[in-house]
Amino acid sequence: MSNIREVARIAGVSVATVSRALSHPEKVSESSKLRVKNAIEQVNYRPNMLARNFRSARSYSLVVLVPDISNPFFAQVIRSIELQAQKKGYSVLLGDTQDSNVREQEYIRLVETRLSDGIIQLRPMSDHFHETNTFNFPYLHLCATESSPGPCIRVDNVAGFEHMIDYLISLGHRRIGLITGLKGNPHTIDRFKGYKQALEKAGIAFDDNLVAEGEYVIWSGVNAAAELCKLHNRPTAIACMNDEMAIGAIQAVKTHGLRVPEDISITGFDDISYARYCDPPLTTIAQPSMDMGTIAVDMLLRMIDGESLSDDKHVLPYDFIVRKSTTTVEVEV
Amino acid sequence: MSNIREVARIAGVSVATVSRALSHPEKVSESSKLRVKNAIEQVNYRPNMLARNFRSARSYSLVVLVPDISNPFFAQVIRSIELQAQKKGYSVLLGDTQDSNVREQEYIRLVETRLSDGIIQLRPMSDHFHETNTFNFPYLHLCATESSPGPCIRVDNVAGFEHMIDYLISLGHRRIGLITGLKGNPHTIDRFKGYKQALEKAGIAFDDNLVAEGEYVIWSGVNAAAELCKLHNRPTAIACMNDEMAIGAIQAVKTHGLRVPEDISITGFDDISYARYCDPPLTTIAQPSMDMGTIAVDMLLRMIDGESLSDDKHVLPYDFIVRKSTTTVEVEV
Repeated sequence: MSNIREVARIAGVSVATVSRALSHPEKVSESSKLRVKNAIEQVNYRPNMLARNFRSARSYSLVVLVPDISNPFFAQVIRSIELQAQKKGYSVLLGDTQDSNVREQEYIRLVETRLSDGIIQLRPMSDHFHETNTFNFPYLHLCATESSPGPCIRVDNVAGFEHMIDYLISLGHRRIGLITGLKGNPHTIDRFKGYKQALEKAGIAFDDNLVAEGEYVIWSGVNAAAELCKLHNRPTAIACMNDEMAIGAIQAVKTHGLRVPEDISITGFDDISYARYCDPPLTTIAQPSMDMGTIAVDMLLRMIDGESLSDDKHVLPYDFIVRKSTTTVEVEV
Repeated sequence: MSNIREVARIAGVSVATVSRALSHPEKVSESSKLRVKNAIEQVNYRPNMLARNFRSARSYSLVVLVPDISNPFFAQVIRSIELQAQKKGYSVLLGDTQDSNVREQEYIRLVETRLSDGIIQLRPMSDHFHETNTFNFPYLHLCATESSPGPCIRVDNVAGFEHMIDYLISLGHRRIGLITGLKGNPHTIDRFKGYKQALEKAGIAFDDNLVAEGEYVIWSGVNAAAELCKLHNRPTAIACMNDEMAIGAIQAVKTHGLRVPEDISITGFDDISYARYCDPPLTTIAQPSMDMGTIAVDMLLRMIDGESLSDDKHVLPYDFIVRKSTTTVEVEV
């Protein structure tokens, strides 16, 4: 492996100039930069940026913690984070925690040991987590909830889900099934609250039999919807806490010999790319995944630069999207 | 921020012991380890691992280059890479290159500058790329093709696609449409070869009119299938080069007032999670995403350890999966 002295010799400049051309190219003349560049290529030099990072105590990387990268909603958010981070000279360390606290701790250690400069948390954390954890490094909640402390970004999950149930009620539905996500997940709690508020406003009694538990993945939507279809007094609509479970629910309803939406309307949450391509295309709530990633990176970098953003809370707007998986109830029995 | 001396003082051990407890815990007694651990917690010490990495010239991270993280097939492979990497003490730097050479170069620089120890390339690269690029660091092609030089892992895309077309021919299809991926993409080239070989074996003349170009994303499958449906002499089956385009094709065929599979059979490639939940569920070729990731990490770490694996080429088996999107042709006109 060649070294920086060799590059300087071939380029006909000082070692300091080579170093400057690498770390602060704006301070070096175009002609020197070109000579350094050519010399680097000629001798196949790999500058050791670990040394630079050691000196600056910066890693120029950030960790994104995600509960499930195979969920396309998270993939969209990660894509936007990665785009913005790269613009700002940062790389993204991916931590797929699979909802495991142990795996999460290992990624947190990357920041604690300065191998990364900060964390963007995509996994919604419980109130208990917030009460018992404080971090002495930049840590930002994306996909946060109402009660998240510190800097965070979220959409209003309560209002979004309530909006969806309001819509189903406006179509004449009164027996509205619910497929929840994992119990205890803060998004599940918020969306459940939205469901109950909408029923209450409309004077519809809450019926525990109409609630089936899922796990935010497709197959769990299949199983939960199959249960609801078997009810003696089955629902005329099923609201799902995410699109993946809704896609599974559509299949289960059809397998049961029923039609979507004529016999059962189905709704989702997130607006993943498949939502418009399932049959029928899905009525859902769109989260602004692109904005979420961009704003998160900008906020985290300000924190890395030492700003205190503890009261910086962004609530981003959701979109309500009506497609063909929902329709009116003609006669309520 | 507290420092290592403070930790040593509180733990009642030497600075060297603290350092050893962090870097080689197996060399330190259990009682010292516990005292160090408690002291670290007490003073909230964050050891600077950048210093360790600078000394060892290792970053303990690897870069995964992916053309599109929002494609669920790649998300599955990344998940398996990340699982195996974490088991081995490595973190994963994610490079979503969006098929851009410029963005790819920026990630390659991370390894060139030793901020990462090696690269796993998920983007299939052209023969021209292989001829004009050599890397003086660990670099491994996953999702490789027949002509990929150096260590690589792949499924046989030619054989897999040929298998699918053989199957359609066995069902009586003779006008078999094809929705390709991006032109020039090595997977597109391989799968096209499989298509042509199957037709030739069966004595079916290749018909350029039956070929429509897509881009490996859903909407491109919608557009391409819409074209094929409008043909005067339309195909009785459409083979798509990935599942996403097949999901789009199913929608386009239905929008055209035709039935899948009775009027047009549809096939995919990859077996993403949505393949079994679309309507009808998709006949496809499954790639072993879990094995691909595990083997790739193990190979890359051996290269990082200095082994030369230049002739190590793994061809992993694919699975042929028949679901309900394909059926026989009763009468050929």
